[in-house]
Amino acid sequence: MKKPLIIDCHGHYTTAPKALETWRNRQIAAIKDPANKPKVSELQISDDELRESIETNQLRLMRERGSDLTIFSPRASFMAHHIGDFEVSSTWAAICNELCYRVAQLFPDNFIAAAMLPQSPGVDPATCLPELEKCVTQYGNVGINLNPDPSGGHWTSPPLSDRHWYPVYEKMVEYDIPAMIHVSTSCNACFHTTGAHYLNADTTAFMQCLTSDLFKDFPTLKFLIPHGGGAVPYHWGRFRGLAQELKKPLLKDHLLHNIFFDTCVYHQSGIDLLTKVIPLDNILFASEMIGAVRGIDPETGHYYDDTKRYIEASTQLDAQQRYQIYEGNARRVFPRLDAALTAKNQ
Amino acid sequence: MKKPLIIDCHGHYTTAPKALETWRNRQIAAIKDPANKPKVSELQISDDELRESIETNQLRLMRERGSDLTIFSPRASFMAHHIGDFEVSSTWAAICNELCYRVAQLFPDNFIAAAMLPQSPGVDPATCLPELEKCVTQYGNVGINLNPDPSGGHWTSPPLSDRHWYPVYEKMVEYDIPAMIHVSTSCNACFHTTGAHYLNADTTAFMQCLTSDLFKDFPTLKFLIPHGGGAVPYHWGRFRGLAQELKKPLLKDHLLHNIFFDTCVYHQSGIDLLTKVIPLDNILFASEMIGAVRGIDPETGHYYDDTKRYIEASTQLDAQQRYQIYEGNARRVFPRLDAALTAKNQ
Repeated sequence: MKKPLIIDCHGHYTTAPKALETWRNRQIAAIKDPANKPKVSELQISDDELRESIETNQLRLMRERGSDLTIFSPRASFMAHHIGDFEVSSTWAAICNELCYRVAQLFPDNFIAAAMLPQSPGVDPATCLPELEKCVTQYGNVGINLNPDPSGGHWTSPPLSDRHWYPVYEKMVEYDIPAMIHVSTSCNACFHTTGAHYLNADTTAFMQCLTSDLFKDFPTLKFLIPHGGGAVPYHWGRFRGLAQELKKPLLKDHLLHNIFFDTCVYHQSGIDLLTKVIPLDNILFASEMIGAVRGIDPETGHYYDDTKRYIEASTQLDAQQRYQIYEGNARRVFPRLDAALTAKNQ
Repeated sequence: MKKPLIIDCHGHYTTAPKALETWRNRQIAAIKDPANKPKVSELQISDDELRESIETNQLRLMRERGSDLTIFSPRASFMAHHIGDFEVSSTWAAICNELCYRVAQLFPDNFIAAAMLPQSPGVDPATCLPELEKCVTQYGNVGINLNPDPSGGHWTSPPLSDRHWYPVYEKMVEYDIPAMIHVSTSCNACFHTTGAHYLNADTTAFMQCLTSDLFKDFPTLKFLIPHGGGAVPYHWGRFRGLAQELKKPLLKDHLLHNIFFDTCVYHQSGIDLLTKVIPLDNILFASEMIGAVRGIDPETGHYYDDTKRYIEASTQLDAQQRYQIYEGNARRVFPRLDAALTAKNQ
């Protein structure tokens, strides 16, 4: 069979030029000092700067590791929806989404964009729709990141099964785009952002879906749960048993037409469990490279987040199954990605 | 080698006679209606009732499954430290701990008690010490359950590494007892109690320890993280990498003299990952039977929570390693359990 396209469905622009963070810090400072609010036009990042930030980082590693295309969204920990009000989030989301769109235009063979939303705690998610629409219809985005906890670790929003979120789901279904369920920085001292809050949110989101009938209302809605699904695959027996206690259908019927897991699990044993326990139709290749864990594993001599190595080293997967994980499932879960590739005869 | 004693280090009294729940409901109702506050003396449960509740449930299953001794504590989801004030929690904890003590007296070969604490959100944990002292010195308890989030899913207490908790740790070290880090019912609609909050708390607690130097202050302090350590073993590479980013020592040196995981993971692949990834000195047998997941797994025909089957079926463990998991590690982590067994020539 033909060599699969290696699609990394979980990349963030963690390496944006410093000017972005500087502007953001001015924006945050201006929440208490509105006279000094920076204008959007004061942020100037040239194409050359974008190119360099990508070529020396993500693209360099993609070439070294052998991945082809990254679904690229704004830096998750910088979304920080808890900072300021809707206007602050809205301005910030527009800036970050435009940068990812520009990266995708500069490197059309290697990056395609997904959008962050201008969420704000206590604000109706319907307010996110104009940004979402722009990103899909004008920027060619193929997915969104949806934060189930815009409060940043205080969990003050209703569960994902609540009608609160339905305006976003209706638009997702209309556009046929999936959402990666991805929180941002924790401002709760109990939760380390990447070591606890991220994984907890993954588990929480899955369980919110399990206890509900959300996918009866939205049979074509698709959620991608990152970081290998948090604790879910490791506790798959627990979740199967809980669904049984709650008189829900088998998980494969209840949730697995709609919920998918990425491969951001940073050791071989974890990937082996994931691919053994979760049906292979529900696993999408991803690395979240230059993200939470940037070092080299002294036990292997390779980067922790070089997840392609674990997929390659797996003794459980054959070529067809690797194709599913690398390309096939991503094209099914992200139909707009598939359309974009097909249009390029890929 | 001699047949190991099968010690289940994680059992709760989930099957207490109905009178207990009835009394508790009256206590809760009286928070808003103090004139109807029930007296402790109004709760009457006979030894025969206790015996029956155990013989037909936990003890029956222990015999069927072949475990010998359970470290037995009050029902975790009923601790509900968020309900009422310290006085409410204190009265409730005393009642529940006395019942577990009575069970241990009625079945001294099969049960030994661990205590819940009368925690209350916003109240100094030092207020728990009288109950803790009574349970250890008068009731022969060999451990405690410490709730890192007495708010019940709002996470309003400081992390476990904060000096806030030190009075409890000082007493634990003095008595040489470990704490199982175990939350209770979630009253936050985002978190399903046993499907999200429990696992999240396990992951959160581990990460709170990882980011801190708690065990430099308390080199002999011991925490048992239940439910197989939440998401931790599945993401062991992530945690090793995060420790590296934070310039902490290797996890085996930084945390594994002090942190232990139980085997409450309800499928074979999960147990196989746990025993492969986590050093075997750090794994203690447990089932949390008649707990969150009480059904029979249609894939195996056996109870999900019959975790002994997974240990037995493991192809990774030899007899000496099973002895560690079943008996050796529990005797090391719970020195008062070891002393009690030794006193009986066990």
